[in-house]
This record gives sequence, C-alpha cells and structure tokens, in this order.
Amino acid sequence: MPENVLTLGAVFYPGFELLDVFGPLEMFGSVGPELRIVTVAEHAGPVASFQGPRALADHGFADCPALDLVLLPGGFGTLAALQNDALHDFLRDRSAAARITMSVCSGSALLAKAGLLDGLRATTNKQFFSLGASQSEKVDWVKAARWVDAGRFVTSSGVSAGMDMALAVIERLFGAQKAEQIAVLTEYEWHRDPSWDPFVAYLDQATLPEQA
Amino acid sequence: MPENVLTLGAVFYPGFELLDVFGPLEMFGSVGPELRIVTVAEHAGPVASFQGPRALADHGFADCPALDLVLLPGGFGTLAALQNDALHDFLRDRSAAARITMSVCSGSALLAKAGLLDGLRATTNKQFFSLGASQSEKVDWVKAARWVDAGRFVTSSGVSAGMDMALAVIERLFGAQKAEQIAVLTEYEWHRDPSWDPFVAYLDQATLPEQA
Repeated sequence: MPENVLTLGAVFYPGFELLDVFGPLEMFGSVGPELRIVTVAEHAGPVASFQGPRALADHGFADCPALDLVLLPGGFGTLAALQNDALHDFLRDRSAAARITMSVCSGSALLAKAGLLDGLRATTNKQFFSLGASQSEKVDWVKAARWVDAGRFVTSSGVSAGMDMALAVIERLFGAQKAEQIAVLTEYEWHRDPSWDPFVAYLDQATLPEQA
Repeated sequence: MPENVLTLGAVFYPGFELLDVFGPLEMFGSVGPELRIVTVAEHAGPVASFQGPRALADHGFADCPALDLVLLPGGFGTLAALQNDALHDFLRDRSAAARITMSVCSGSALLAKAGLLDGLRATTNKQFFSLGASQSEKVDWVKAARWVDAGRFVTSSGVSAGMDMALAVIERLFGAQKAEQIAVLTEYEWHRDPSWDPFVAYLDQATLPEQA
C-alpha cells in the first residue's frame, strides 16, 4: 500500500442493517485513492443482512489488516451480536489502534457493551434507544442527536444518520470541499448539523418486526 | 411461496454503485413478509461494486425466479454494461413480465439502450445526464426530477434519489402508512415531491473519477 492511504474496515455480522453499512461506504468509497475499504466479519465469506441480501467479508477477524477507521453497523442482528465475545474482543483490539471508530444505529450498543464508550458522549437509534442505553450506565447518552463526535469514537443515530456522520468524518479527515463534492456527486441532501434530530419524537416507540 | 408475496429482483453488474442498490433495498427490505428480495447478476456469485465491497448474486440470469419488481442500479460500471447484450436481453425479458421496473442513477441509460423507455418520460443522474440521454432520442428525458413515475417504468436521479423513489413505489404498492413507517424506522427524511431537484444545478459537470 502507498503511504498516507487510510484503510477503513466495515464490520459485518449476521442480521446487519443494509443501509447502516452501505450508506457510509458509498460516501467513504467516493473519497478516492486516499482511502481503501475492506470488509471483515468473524469469518471471511458471505454474511446475510437483516433485509436478506448477502455481502462478502474479505477477511475474518484473524486475518484482518491494520485498520485506521472502523465502521460498525446496527440492525436486528445486534441482539445476537451482544452475546458474541469474539466480536467485542475484535472491537476492543481494533478501536485501540484505529484513528476513529464509528457506529451506526444500534451498533453503539455493541461498543457500549464492550466498554468502549464509558466516560464518553454517544447516541444510538431512536426507536430502540433503551437497547443501546441499557448496555452501560457510564456512557453520557444523548437522546436528540443525528450523530455525536466524541473524538476517537463517533456514534450516529438510526440507519440513514450514518450517511450524515460519514460526511462529517470525511470533512474532518479530508476537508470540507471533498465532503461537499461527494454529497453533490451522490445527490445527497447532507444534514450538517449534528443536533438535527426530528426522529427523537419517536423515542422507544418501535417493536421488533415480524421475521419474514 | 405464499400467494400475494411480491418478489423484487435487484440486478448487480461489476462496478455498480453501492447506494443505488442498497438504499432502495433498505426500504423494500423493511416492507415485511409481503415482499421478498432476490439478487441476480449474469452469473451467480460475488459482484464487486465500484466502491470495492462485493455483494453476492443469489441467481444468474438463467436461473432467476419470476420477478414482480426489478431494481437496476447505475454506477461507473454502466459504461461497460452498455455493451453487455445479455444484460439488455435480461432486462427486456423481465421488464415485460414485471409490474414495475425501476432504475437508479445511470441505470436508466441501460433501460434506454435496451429500448425500454422509448415513448416514455424518464430521468437519470444529473452530473452525467448526457450519458443517459444519449442512449435514445425517443425518450422524453426530464432534467429536473428526483424521480419520474411513468407507470411500469420508474426512473430516479442519482444515487440517493433511489431511496425517495423506493418509498414512492412502496406507497403505491402498500399504502402511505407503510411508506411513512419505513421512513421513520430508518430515520430517513423522505423527499415526497418528485420534482424536488436541487442537483439539476450541476448538470453534466462531473468527470470520470480516478480509479484507485
């Protein structure tokens, strides 16, 4: 790899939410040759999303290259992933070495369970807010936030919020002009205000969906 | 399959744009047991997106089940896909039997090349508008549109616009309440007006990106 290329690792687990991963990866994948994306799961190979379609993990936890950025999705699979010690160990190891670890939606519940958000401000998705918040009392959980930037950990609200967070992190790493170019190229109406959160009106209102 | 379950086929090809597919699939995948998603490419197996991450096609063109809905992404891979007769044949065959065929971004260039949009109103992504529009003079190309609903063919503008189109199609098929529930669940600020299009200001301004 040339120097100065950042490696972003997107972490898959069974039942991950499609847009939690692929919204941010659309944005990061449009940065250019300064950033490359790898995908990782406990074991390399196909991983089924909650919506059905399968993505391929390039690497297992054991053979994953060094990561500068970590992206962790949420989804209904978070419930099972909360019991997966191998995932929590991987997140602890890799976030210690990474420049920024990001979560989308209920992904922050996993970071909290791993103890990584203790003492920090963080948010999670609105309709299952208590699921995230119940994982650690040592986190300063912010209810009304599109995303929360706590420096080395950046957590976003539900699903679509990951795209706004991704553009904000791109702005931090690569400058405002690059982030703006990507928003225009993807015809995305970027919410630049991390406190914009109309969905806080729906706090804890959802129930688990029927499985198809 | 139970009766009344609609099957949506998402079509992959090398160099497809991640969010073109997975934005709409997030929305359609949240409808519930009334809709199932299958993924299809010329040959079953892994297909690399333009951004790098690979998705799995469940089916090849030859063994793809009957489709009620077809979703066709764009992306820089569209340029090569314009030369792929097998893809155009597949699109002609399947759109003839489908209830609705949808494209995102430069996907409409492929539908136009296959002759499927002749005599219809359609749109495509803004920054490479001429690429789509040059594929057929018999299409009524609409410059300022988030998406264009021409009945059996619905075409959206670039990348993020696919999510707004998907919610509009969900509203048509499953009702406004279902579409609204999905927008809230995914914390997505749905643009409900198909004529909303701030990105028309950037018509044909982009150039092809550097390949990493």
